Amino acid sequence: MVILDPHADIVDLTAAIVDIESVSGNEAALADAVEQALRENAPHLEVLRDGDTVIARTELGRSQRVVVAGHLDTVPVAGNLPSVRRIREGREELAGRGSCDMKGGVAVLLALAVEATSPPMDLTWIFYDHEEVASADNSLTRIAAERPDLLAGDFAILGEPTSAGVEGGCKGTMKLEVTARGTAAHSARDWVGDNAIHRLAPVLERLAAYEARRAVIDGLEYRECLNVVAIDGGIAGNVIPDRAHVTLNYRFAPDTSVAQAEAHVRELLCDLDLEIEVSDAAAGALPGLDTAPAREFLAALGEDVRVDAKQGWTDVARFSALGVPAVNFGPGDPLLAHTDDEHVPVEDLRRSLAALRRWLGLSQPVEADTLPA
Amino acid sequence: MVILDPHADIVDLTAAIVDIESVSGNEAALADAVEQALRENAPHLEVLRDGDTVIARTELGRSQRVVVAGHLDTVPVAGNLPSVRRIREGREELAGRGSCDMKGGVAVLLALAVEATSPPMDLTWIFYDHEEVASADNSLTRIAAERPDLLAGDFAILGEPTSAGVEGGCKGTMKLEVTARGTAAHSARDWVGDNAIHRLAPVLERLAAYEARRAVIDGLEYRECLNVVAIDGGIAGNVIPDRAHVTLNYRFAPDTSVAQAEAHVRELLCDLDLEIEVSDAAAGALPGLDTAPAREFLAALGEDVRVDAKQGWTDVARFSALGVPAVNFGPGDPLLAHTDDEHVPVEDLRRSLAALRRWLGLSQPVEADTLPA
Repeated sequence: MVILDPHADIVDLTAAIVDIESVSGNEAALADAVEQALRENAPHLEVLRDGDTVIARTELGRSQRVVVAGHLDTVPVAGNLPSVRRIREGREELAGRGSCDMKGGVAVLLALAVEATSPPMDLTWIFYDHEEVASADNSLTRIAAERPDLLAGDFAILGEPTSAGVEGGCKGTMKLEVTARGTAAHSARDWVGDNAIHRLAPVLERLAAYEARRAVIDGLEYRECLNVVAIDGGIAGNVIPDRAHVTLNYRFAPDTSVAQAEAHVRELLCDLDLEIEVSDAAAGALPGLDTAPAREFLAALGEDVRVDAKQGWTDVARFSALGVPAVNFGPGDPLLAHTDDEHVPVEDLRRSLAALRRWLGLSQPVEADTLPA
Repeated sequence: MVILDPHADIVDLTAAIVDIESVSGNEAALADAVEQALRENAPHLEVLRDGDTVIARTELGRSQRVVVAGHLDTVPVAGNLPSVRRIREGREELAGRGSCDMKGGVAVLLALAVEATSPPMDLTWIFYDHEEVASADNSLTRIAAERPDLLAGDFAILGEPTSAGVEGGCKGTMKLEVTARGTAAHSARDWVGDNAIHRLAPVLERLAAYEARRAVIDGLEYRECLNVVAIDGGIAGNVIPDRAHVTLNYRFAPDTSVAQAEAHVRELLCDLDLEIEVSDAAAGALPGLDTAPAREFLAALGEDVRVDAKQGWTDVARFSALGVPAVNFGPGDPLLAHTDDEHVPVEDLRRSLAALRRWLGLSQPVEADTLPA
């Protein structure tokens, strides 16, 4: 088993974690290493293992509990392992699959879990599996159903990449399957038929012209998005098609319920003769930045930390659904997640670690490379 | 080898031809039977065999030559062989693969080729293969290239199903591939991208609203058709697609060239940012009903024969391209072609035969079942 040293420099620790390949379904080795590092270095934590999820908790009897969570898995490797430490355009980076999404965050969490022996709040550290795959396979789905107490808390922080800023809550997401029916005919005699693809014209027209709502919640702007993400239709080159179909994806602000989101899309298309079916839906998450633990977290991070709305759906919504306000905070540019050139700036790792140390009331060690020359 | 008797009752002859399965590529047995029937029963004809095409010609030194052609092949059998003679809703029919498209016509042609020993014009009877497949494989493509003299004439009649009416000329057909490009992005941040499917909105809108031209030529109305016959686009449910594509099919009147047809579609979409490419095109055929041999043909058929425009593309266009005016005339409802319930009314077979006999100056035999009881 690879031994992880949670006291190592954060870049070295991140590289070591990145280099344990853990594509979804193959998290066991990394979960073993994380579990071992916690058991050997953090006697102040109760360590649980559930499948390939590792949960470590303080039991200090504090008045508040904060959940800090990060997923261990990555999307498939694209020739980008092992990790490479490099300087590009004057910036030091660690590149490799998972470096951004989200092993930089996992490294920061692991270091802090070991370091924070006496934090001002109780902490639940969660290192979980199967985040990059279907929601049903996500281990948080299973734990929320079987052991919701393990996810309980007054506030939650997800270590997803946010460029070491805070991204609060997240938008909901819904997929709708919209089908138009017509009548097939020979394409040389179209007046005998009714072209189902042509019946989608007003659907595309309305979506193309759609002015999406921008909802400001707790000072954060959630920009809604409503798009056709797939379209298909056609039988043969000489046939008027009798069926055409689009998949819509609606990303809606977290003040909107799944039912309200569905009603909104149906209303937009209500005068058209279409079959509309919701094929997937997940509510968003309110940022909850007005709650006490959130305010304390933001205050500890300081004025210079950027606070934005999270646009993409993340697991913060799972905590939100359990009544736990949640934010995303972690190193790495979210736009680099899943790309072949995935990387994390070293500066992001250090800033994330320092910010969370402030929040946890930990001293900031003077690092060798920041000493005066 | 099955022996065909061209002197048999036309329904029996059609049934015998239908029962020799001849799905495209498997025409040899039927071609053998047709060749044999001609060689044994029509000493007045010069019989040629070219692949699975049989050509039989008079050489009487007449001032005009008319080509009468029919294809031997069918689309695949759908449990509808052997043929069934039946009465449905009081109407006598022969049902089975090819009965309508176009072995009823082949039977009529074979009977007349044998019967017309001294017609008022020279005749070229063509029984050909590979009509129901790609144009390049059609034996008329090969013969037009290698032996255009075999297709030469002043007029041509194609025995395609027309319910024993005349359908003159045919529309041209063109397929165009239209592609819209955009910029991919996460569907929760669509403002970073540019949805290529949405860019197709004006294409669908214009096609749905398109008022197709109706061209009247030689008194026949050709209704143009312009349709989206296929559409596709989409990468994943959470991605703004960067490419979307439609296939258009334009069926244009025979007074319009392929170049003019292409220009027309490009003009319709000219202000949109699209890639447009012609993937297939074939000119139509003018009916040529004002030519002397066509007028003689129509006059012989009589006042009660319906004369319409042919809307679908047929091999008449090949003759038209060789400068030979051509019409479609044959038993069977063209809308039944290729259907599993393909059938031909017995009445259509008898009317087609009788009409062409009038044209060829042949006496009408008194048939047993039309004698007074």
